[in-house]
Amino acid sequence: MITLEKVRQTAESDARTYGYYLHPDPDFLKDLLEGLKRNEERYGYPSCPCRLASGKFELDRDIICPCDYRDPDVAEYGACYCALYVRKDLFEGKTPILPIPERRPVVKQARAYGGAVEAPVIEKSSETATTTVKAASSEVKLKLWYCRHCGYVVFAEDPPYVCPICKAKREMFAELTISVEAAG
Amino acid sequence: MITLEKVRQTAESDARTYGYYLHPDPDFLKDLLEGLKRNEERYGYPSCPCRLASGKFELDRDIICPCDYRDPDVAEYGACYCALYVRKDLFEGKTPILPIPERRPVVKQARAYGGAVEAPVIEKSSETATTTVKAASSEVKLKLWYCRHCGYVVFAEDPPYVCPICKAKREMFAELTISVEAAG
Amino acid sequence: MITLEKVRQTAESDARTYGYYLHPDPDFLKDLLEGLKRNEERYGYPSCPCRLASGKFELDRDIICPCDYRDPDVAEYGACYCALYVRKDLFEGKTPILPIPERRPVVKQARAYGGAVEAPVIEKSSETATTTVKAASSEVKLKLWYCRHCGYVVFAEDPPYVCPICKAKREMFAELTISVEAAG
Repeated sequence: MITLEKVRQTAESDARTYGYYLHPDPDFLKDLLEGLKRNEERYGYPSCPCRLASGKFELDRDIICPCDYRDPDVAEYGACYCALYVRKDLFEGKTPILPIPERRPVVKQARAYGGAVEAPVIEKSSETATTTVKAASSEVKLKLWYCRHCGYVVFAEDPPYVCPICKAKREMFAELTISVEAAG
Repeated sequence: MITLEKVRQTAESDARTYGYYLHPDPDFLKDLLEGLKRNEERYGYPSCPCRLASGKFELDRDIICPCDYRDPDVAEYGACYCALYVRKDLFEGKTPILPIPERRPVVKQARAYGGAVEAPVIEKSSETATTTVKAASSEVKLKLWYCRHCGYVVFAEDPPYVCPICKAKREMFAELTISVEAAG
Repeated sequence: MITLEKVRQTAESDARTYGYYLHPDPDFLKDLLEGLKRNEERYGYPSCPCRLASGKFELDRDIICPCDYRDPDVAEYGACYCALYVRKDLFEGKTPILPIPERRPVVKQARAYGGAVEAPVIEKSSETATTTVKAASSEVKLKLWYCRHCGYVVFAEDPPYVCPICKAKREMFAELTISVEAAG
């Protein structure tokens, strides 16, 4: 059985690896850790305590904590969506911890919360055009990617927002394809 | 030639990367670092100072420091088998540093210390059944694995106990196979 | 648009991941960060502020910050070529920050600064033999490598000097080749 202490130690260890801090308020932090523990027990993986999981691993994969959006959110806003992980200046109270907008793409949300529902239509208020989000498919296709800066290799649907090895942006990743040639 | 100072700096740098601490007792720590230095000079790789190496790289690979067992041991007990790497609460003396049980599988021990010896038989005292450990083979087969959470790719005999990128448990790893199809 | 603050946060986050520190002098540090920002704007990638980039990504890849030479330079000298990243004892002033010799291979410099120039000839003063550096080719061939210690997989021209996962030296890397066999 997983204990709250184990959940806390994993989060602390991960925070230290990436130079982050856990939320400074002990009660708020405990609520988040209990949410992670509950999700681990319910689904078998610690999905984000602030988002609704589908219970299907492949569709929830991007919101398993640490979620795919943590690193770009901490880089841009100083905190992840939940504010479980925060930057030093927010931990020390020098910068306020404000609500973080949801970075998870609408297509991934729609895919997780029911692939059969009609595709959501997003109206861009500042333009006259209407953007239609492609109908959500529950198919997840994994590919090999590599960081063109440091060479880090990852097998995932999309490359990471930030390279965990050299901190390069997502744009630095390219697909790694394996070609086979006949010998003669 | 490798110096003790270089061995210490490598260990310190690695401890910082993973948010660990080195053993708080300077004399005990020095003994461990000297053991690493001695093994580096003897074998060409810094195998664990607290375990007997075979001198054959492929069979010792899992006990090269940081060994494969460090991360799950620090997560579960707060210290690695040697207590070279410890968790913050043990470093600060809030939790005592106790002996850590050997996590290295018996089959890997047997394989390293003589593949020709009879397969060890382990009797489970609490049950009537007798478990026979499979005869140790010196063959090491490397495979590609990927972390189903973050996509981290690794080429090794077994996947890591803990994903170094996202801290997912070993169970989150799956084999990555490359399939080739004929075009027509 | 990239801000100086964003450049600083990326560098700080990366320093924390690897247990490094940024240069202790705030003015010197600001100059380096402004150099990174300028290169990011000019080339689209933050090449080393202390080296001349060619503007061609593939030829500059090894000097994009953090450059390929940072980890071995910090390990050996306590600071990277620029002294943007320094070790704790240098940050704290216990060890002086001295000029770091250029570790970038002459062939890579020649390739970046004009492949058509005559191959540089290096005379080894301590020996009678003359070493001729092979003529610089602008061709960059990427390969898959893996760390024989921890299994880390990287797709790059050369393996890293230091494994970012387990800190093994470059010599621990081997080429990872994929073989295809006919079924019958």
